[in-house]
Amino acid sequence: MELGNELNEYKDIIESELDKTLPNEGMLQEKVFKAMRYSIFAGGKRLRPILTLKACKLISGDYKKALPFALALEMIHTYSLIHDDLPAMDDDDYRRGKLTNHKVYGEDIAILAGDALLNYAYETMIDAIKNNKNYRNEYINAFIEIAKAAGVFGMIGGQVVDVLSEGKDIGEETLKFIHKNKTSALIEASIVAGAIIGGATEQEINKLRQYGKAIGLGYQIRDDILDEIGDINKLGKDIGSDEENNKVTYVAMYGLEKSIEETKRLSEIAKNALKLFEHKETVDFFKRLCNYLVEREV
Amino acid sequence: MELGNELNEYKDIIESELDKTLPNEGMLQEKVFKAMRYSIFAGGKRLRPILTLKACKLISGDYKKALPFALALEMIHTYSLIHDDLPAMDDDDYRRGKLTNHKVYGEDIAILAGDALLNYAYETMIDAIKNNKNYRNEYINAFIEIAKAAGVFGMIGGQVVDVLSEGKDIGEETLKFIHKNKTSALIEASIVAGAIIGGATEQEINKLRQYGKAIGLGYQIRDDILDEIGDINKLGKDIGSDEENNKVTYVAMYGLEKSIEETKRLSEIAKNALKLFEHKETVDFFKRLCNYLVEREV
Repeated sequence: MELGNELNEYKDIIESELDKTLPNEGMLQEKVFKAMRYSIFAGGKRLRPILTLKACKLISGDYKKALPFALALEMIHTYSLIHDDLPAMDDDDYRRGKLTNHKVYGEDIAILAGDALLNYAYETMIDAIKNNKNYRNEYINAFIEIAKAAGVFGMIGGQVVDVLSEGKDIGEETLKFIHKNKTSALIEASIVAGAIIGGATEQEINKLRQYGKAIGLGYQIRDDILDEIGDINKLGKDIGSDEENNKVTYVAMYGLEKSIEETKRLSEIAKNALKLFEHKETVDFFKRLCNYLVEREV
Repeated sequence: MELGNELNEYKDIIESELDKTLPNEGMLQEKVFKAMRYSIFAGGKRLRPILTLKACKLISGDYKKALPFALALEMIHTYSLIHDDLPAMDDDDYRRGKLTNHKVYGEDIAILAGDALLNYAYETMIDAIKNNKNYRNEYINAFIEIAKAAGVFGMIGGQVVDVLSEGKDIGEETLKFIHKNKTSALIEASIVAGAIIGGATEQEINKLRQYGKAIGLGYQIRDDILDEIGDINKLGKDIGSDEENNKVTYVAMYGLEKSIEETKRLSEIAKNALKLFEHKETVDFFKRLCNYLVEREV
């Protein structure tokens, strides 16, 4: 399942902009710059920043003004992975086929590299707000969208409940909370922030939020499915690691068949939300993403 | 050494505003709200937020519009303490006479509570920017001042070099870097951010920055002195913990006498920087703080 060449184009832009933006100079704290860059350049799919740029382009015809926020989203996503992998959390040695941050740089530097990426994400966004008076309102609203999704009522909240649920017999409500907040919130915010920056109307934002919610939840369920039946060589991480960490997954709660059905259902919800944008050529990417969601193997 | 009753007034305001601002509702992630509040209300001096409010008042005659930024600074300071105390970092069991966050809530929740406080600090500041169009430029500049001081070219950078220097024979340059960034940067930013919000001129900001640098460095050296000769009952933390952690302190490098002399010298530099504000009544607090710096026992 391919998302087309244009995806690579965005990926290259994002990676070269990350390289330009992240600190790199030879100062005394250089090791943390290396640790930040190690995880940023460890082979991520760049899903969140691509969504931001694509959503901005869908609305305004141009992606460029969303770039600082796209980069910030990748920094926030990466910091969350570094902290999730820590021995006190999921205790993972590998991620995307490479050693995790703390295995390379030590636990202390990994904690600080995570902190640094989170802080740097906010530095990047506030600099953009300062330097672009023309989009100031849009940028401020996009910042708020991202900050709430990353925080205690979003990603961090989801991670907290995930950690507290380990080894416990959790109910549907708790699993839903974890999925909604731990993964889906930031994916949703990636799309909505891009749309806001593009100048979307309230109606457009609502539709893309519906789309983002469905895509985000579907993405997480597909993750659970891949943890059960995925190919370790493609995934670059251990299969069955959720089970090993005593985590209740969607697959464990509802079975494989119903999980696959649910990703299909969410994919349809996402497609329906796109009807408002039917007249726009760039909506095709978002449609293809609905299928990718159901079929991806990494 | 007392800083006067007005300090208690500010402390009470800050604590009641923190109580109102921090999340508290009975949701599934409630445990992290408790962990955040535990460390926030563990008896800090509130030095940074007080400096912000006082600096705003010095310039504008009112402190209120600096409140969101004062709260954010206390959240950032507190997150840094939670992460510093972790087993992978300084591995401290007590702070201000109470068990450290990870001793009460576990390492996983402590890491997330730190992340949450950092993120919430930025949520608090961006909400203020969104909701107060009248001070928008001042707020944006104050945000940038704080974010840079908290990041990899400020506090986190200092902490990285501190961690990397443990057990090593470091030179003056490295010790200076640690002091300047780990502690002093955020203290300086607390004062400067308050002044910016108050509408300070460039000259006023420069003078208060000089003041903040001197106060911040002096504060850190006094910390090193107290770690050597302080009263454990007053400090609420272990004496000699720096030595135990193989940390080079100012006292270890230059001896006690020279360290005390240096705090006096910095105190004079700070006082001189205040001359520009001689005509203002509220400058007295900043003068008294110069003495407090040299004499404080906790």
